[in-house]
Amino acid sequence: MVNETQHTCSASSSSKSDGGSSSGSESSKESSRCSTPVLDADRHERLREKMRRRQDSGDKWFSLEFFPPRTANAAVNLISRFDRMGAGGPLFIDVTWHPAGDPGSDKETSSMIIANTAVNYCGLETILHMTCCNQTKDDITGHLQKAKRLGLKNIMALRGDPVGEEWEEEVDGFNYAVDLVKHIRNEFDDYFDICVAGYPKGHPDAESYEADLRHLKEKVSAGADFIITQLFFRSETFLKFMKDCQAIGITCPIIPGIFPIQGYHSLRQLVKLSKLEVPQEIKDVIEPIKDNDAAIRNYGVELAVSMCRELLDSGMVHGLHFYTLNREVATTEVLKCLGIWKEDPRRPLPWAVSAHPKRRVEDVRPIFWASRPKSYIYRTQEWDDFPNGRWGNSSSPAFGELKDYYLFYLKSKSPREELLKMWGEELTGEESVFEVFTCYITGEPNKNGHKVTCMPWNDDPLATETNLLKEQLEKVNRRGILTINSQPNINGKPSTDPIVGWGPSGGYVFQKAYLEFFTSSEIVTALLKVLKKYELRVNYHIVNVKGQNITNAPDLQPNAVTWGIFPGREIIQPTVVDPVSFLSWKDEAFALWIEQWAKLYEEESPSRMIIQYIHDNYYLVNLVDNDFPLENCLWQVVDDTFELLN
Amino acid sequence: MVNETQHTCSASSSSKSDGGSSSGSESSKESSRCSTPVLDADRHERLREKMRRRQDSGDKWFSLEFFPPRTANAAVNLISRFDRMGAGGPLFIDVTWHPAGDPGSDKETSSMIIANTAVNYCGLETILHMTCCNQTKDDITGHLQKAKRLGLKNIMALRGDPVGEEWEEEVDGFNYAVDLVKHIRNEFDDYFDICVAGYPKGHPDAESYEADLRHLKEKVSAGADFIITQLFFRSETFLKFMKDCQAIGITCPIIPGIFPIQGYHSLRQLVKLSKLEVPQEIKDVIEPIKDNDAAIRNYGVELAVSMCRELLDSGMVHGLHFYTLNREVATTEVLKCLGIWKEDPRRPLPWAVSAHPKRRVEDVRPIFWASRPKSYIYRTQEWDDFPNGRWGNSSSPAFGELKDYYLFYLKSKSPREELLKMWGEELTGEESVFEVFTCYITGEPNKNGHKVTCMPWNDDPLATETNLLKEQLEKVNRRGILTINSQPNINGKPSTDPIVGWGPSGGYVFQKAYLEFFTSSEIVTALLKVLKKYELRVNYHIVNVKGQNITNAPDLQPNAVTWGIFPGREIIQPTVVDPVSFLSWKDEAFALWIEQWAKLYEEESPSRMIIQYIHDNYYLVNLVDNDFPLENCLWQVVDDTFELLN
Repeated sequence: MVNETQHTCSASSSSKSDGGSSSGSESSKESSRCSTPVLDADRHERLREKMRRRQDSGDKWFSLEFFPPRTANAAVNLISRFDRMGAGGPLFIDVTWHPAGDPGSDKETSSMIIANTAVNYCGLETILHMTCCNQTKDDITGHLQKAKRLGLKNIMALRGDPVGEEWEEEVDGFNYAVDLVKHIRNEFDDYFDICVAGYPKGHPDAESYEADLRHLKEKVSAGADFIITQLFFRSETFLKFMKDCQAIGITCPIIPGIFPIQGYHSLRQLVKLSKLEVPQEIKDVIEPIKDNDAAIRNYGVELAVSMCRELLDSGMVHGLHFYTLNREVATTEVLKCLGIWKEDPRRPLPWAVSAHPKRRVEDVRPIFWASRPKSYIYRTQEWDDFPNGRWGNSSSPAFGELKDYYLFYLKSKSPREELLKMWGEELTGEESVFEVFTCYITGEPNKNGHKVTCMPWNDDPLATETNLLKEQLEKVNRRGILTINSQPNINGKPSTDPIVGWGPSGGYVFQKAYLEFFTSSEIVTALLKVLKKYELRVNYHIVNVKGQNITNAPDLQPNAVTWGIFPGREIIQPTVVDPVSFLSWKDEAFALWIEQWAKLYEEESPSRMIIQYIHDNYYLVNLVDNDFPLENCLWQVVDDTFELLN
Repeated sequence: MVNETQHTCSASSSSKSDGGSSSGSESSKESSRCSTPVLDADRHERLREKMRRRQDSGDKWFSLEFFPPRTANAAVNLISRFDRMGAGGPLFIDVTWHPAGDPGSDKETSSMIIANTAVNYCGLETILHMTCCNQTKDDITGHLQKAKRLGLKNIMALRGDPVGEEWEEEVDGFNYAVDLVKHIRNEFDDYFDICVAGYPKGHPDAESYEADLRHLKEKVSAGADFIITQLFFRSETFLKFMKDCQAIGITCPIIPGIFPIQGYHSLRQLVKLSKLEVPQEIKDVIEPIKDNDAAIRNYGVELAVSMCRELLDSGMVHGLHFYTLNREVATTEVLKCLGIWKEDPRRPLPWAVSAHPKRRVEDVRPIFWASRPKSYIYRTQEWDDFPNGRWGNSSSPAFGELKDYYLFYLKSKSPREELLKMWGEELTGEESVFEVFTCYITGEPNKNGHKVTCMPWNDDPLATETNLLKEQLEKVNRRGILTINSQPNINGKPSTDPIVGWGPSGGYVFQKAYLEFFTSSEIVTALLKVLKKYELRVNYHIVNVKGQNITNAPDLQPNAVTWGIFPGREIIQPTVVDPVSFLSWKDEAFALWIEQWAKLYEEESPSRMIIQYIHDNYYLVNLVDNDFPLENCLWQVVDDTFELLN
């Protein structure tokens, strides 16, 4: 009678197994117990599985291709582009390989490091391109090992362009992409997902279209998991190619490469490189407007949208791959027109999850790095285990050294001149510092008319959630409670709430109110008197740069300040105030005064000495109101403190 | 300016340590990170530390002494007495050692097994007595090793009574308690807390009071941690003794042994054994009422209370040790009069924590064994790790074999005849089984006038919390939804709530509504149709005795159904619905029909066949309403099911 129902599994209890309890125990452990909470299936799947699942569910997707920039500054900008474009929900991004640009090196502009940053620091599923011609097996293996070590799981295997004009086969070397595919499978088994290139018009060097299709089939047979195509200008071109592939037995996903025309010159250059012919009807439109960039881009967007629509409507295409040329606007516009840019993708956790395979179980972090997640990832990259469940179980408490000012992906997006405009060319006293904090909170321009859009502790404008607290924050910053992190209390809002929601739907999220700030020792003295009245309700940690630490938290236990309750799951508590890591954060938070602010000024200058004074004498304070169902009392605590001082 | 404040610790961040990050990591791990949540400091302290902490805090305490019973039935009763008297909050209990009764054996009446049961199954801090005379070192070491293996941490080291009338010293043997103390320290280092006996009037065999004091000092110097005294009749006796001890340099805690007179004969016997003199003023009162047990007990209570008050008022006494003679009433009365019986001690977790040192980190259990915690403890006793934090982290999923019907501490307190009266001398059909369940819920007598105070799945009357659901439970049981476990939803009640509260004060507790029952396949078929409407809200697991399992829970994840949020701590989720352990519970739950109920009847008898039919054909169902802030929908689910059937 129940056979027709849902999920039926005939499982006998592990206690029934004969044999020793030990083997019974292990098999049960392996088979049925998942040691990680599957908050988001995406986090636990390989790229090819994600692709397959999206295809099965009929959920259309997109991916984005970038090339490594030439300068360190451009790399910083590309990383913020990753963050912004990542918000639209690409299934993956890929980073091209430029043999001439030292692509496997540790330079900030190398393909390897850009891909590493995307996967680890931006949380993006990433494919690293790799070309093989003119390289030794050892070099290639070295690159692949490094990619694996950095947490990259996907390789786009390419031949690469010949060095000279003519193509010559090398004996014992890698001559074709298929050699690289075979090499990856030989040396790394099934570790990597492998992508190969398809040419809807046939590769320019191939004997014929048919011969090129056969080469493609060889690449797939050698172990490639999916195909991304070269760009093309008509949907028919792709659809015919796809049918031809299927006809010769290629069954893996084939993803069309979309190139939204963004300008006259970039189009000409690309066409030259790829040896493609631009259809006459496109030339006819473009030539007359070739000096009008906006007009060309509009046309390019329109063209791409209509071609993508045809592809998606064919029912044969589930995902679209975009050649972005490292630009944002055109591709984003196409995606928004198609409705596959996910404006507000559901957050699996309140913070962005890293895409590194080792970190995928991570589901709790200290609140301190909320605005500096890349620094947190950097300083915990050597951890073997990431906290899965409560922080108290973590066995990786050591934070890496504080040298992140030198890392390009942690650099401020704003150059020195801009920072000086925001934070003051010349400081006249502690009050002028209060003023900078206040302007950052309010969004009002400073007295020289510049808006303060970032702070040493936060390279982005105020979070939406923090806006909820804006009025109070303004008041206290004006008086020298220099806030750097805060969250309001939340007593069970739906997990789908657009501002504070996260995790699977059907759940409820909660927060304890949190406030973190720098302040003078005079205010700390008053604050401590006031806190006596709140002893049972408010937990505090107060520390100066020397590490003198005042707290009422018993036995150094972490305090969960964000948690969620979901249907059919254990409780997730992704953010904690952890007294131990607070001392590592303290080093970083104090150092940022000097590294990011004081060093803008000449040594011995009054401005520099003011920041140095604050660094040396102020305290870093954090407060948690444990009584989350009641109205946040932290503002009252601060008000009482100011009153006591008056 | 902040030096005068609360807890000040000058801690430098681990990242500052020079040398390798590896050593830095380890030292930080060791020193500052506590891997277990300290919900209740008691759970993590040794007995001597608890004693010291109570003394420092001025919190008065008591302890209880029991002797091993002679019969298995008496052992069952003693265990329920442990549970009842444990509710009053003794700091520890102790179990005496009877050389003649095979005290180190595995018999259910042995000292070893009674102490094991107290510590592991009743969660009581326990001292096992051990005597040494007439025993070889190997025997003693064997007993101590066994005690350690069973999780006992405290030994009362005694000489024991000589076998014959006269005391003869053995060469190379154990002649005095001090020999045993030395032996324990030699062989087990600091593993055990050691208690020794003190004699306020001097040991009857000692040359003199002073000589006996010197012997006591030797025992303490050899490594004893505290002293419990022989009984006495006047507070001055103890206070003088204590001063004399201090005068010769005994500084460890000395706990007075209190003997509430409970009857004429027991007093006479005890006095004979201990060679003590009963003061004339007591004899004068007792002799005239020697045949009036109640009068003697009243007098005994009054006498004990006034003596205990004098002791406590002296300021020298922090704890009182009671010789209970395995009786409950007199001691409980004395404790209540003194105000040190904790009527409703705060629960650190919703279930009673085992006192085994290995299990002290345990803070999550499946809900299924809520009414059979001893069975759960038994079936998980071989686990190496107990879940600390989320259940998903547990690496010990295998449950021990189902043979607990044979274990005395899991036996029903009610004899077969009583069970037959409650559950029916003769069953006439499934409906008569429904009737038994209904009477258990309502507390009304069955048709033969007997109240049903226990069921195979629950040896105790309905929990207070379940009473909140009584009306609905009655209705559904009458119609064949045979409930065995349930809890209401709770949306943030204070942790101090007298019915559903647990954990430290200042917190909030939550629950998802839960309902577990046996029911026919006909009802299950209708239920499954109804559950489709509640797909996103209600998680279910439905299984029959063969293990056919129907569920809508994704990927076998546990569902947290009880959790608490506390000041300055991580979130505690002590109860989960775990799909994997449900299959182990299923075996037990179905087996109880046969082992506890069917076997009351003759083989082939109609009554037995009815129970067997239910066992073979019914399903075990559990339902969780995930939407804890809304009104519990599980009753609506059941109502809809009945409606569908009509």
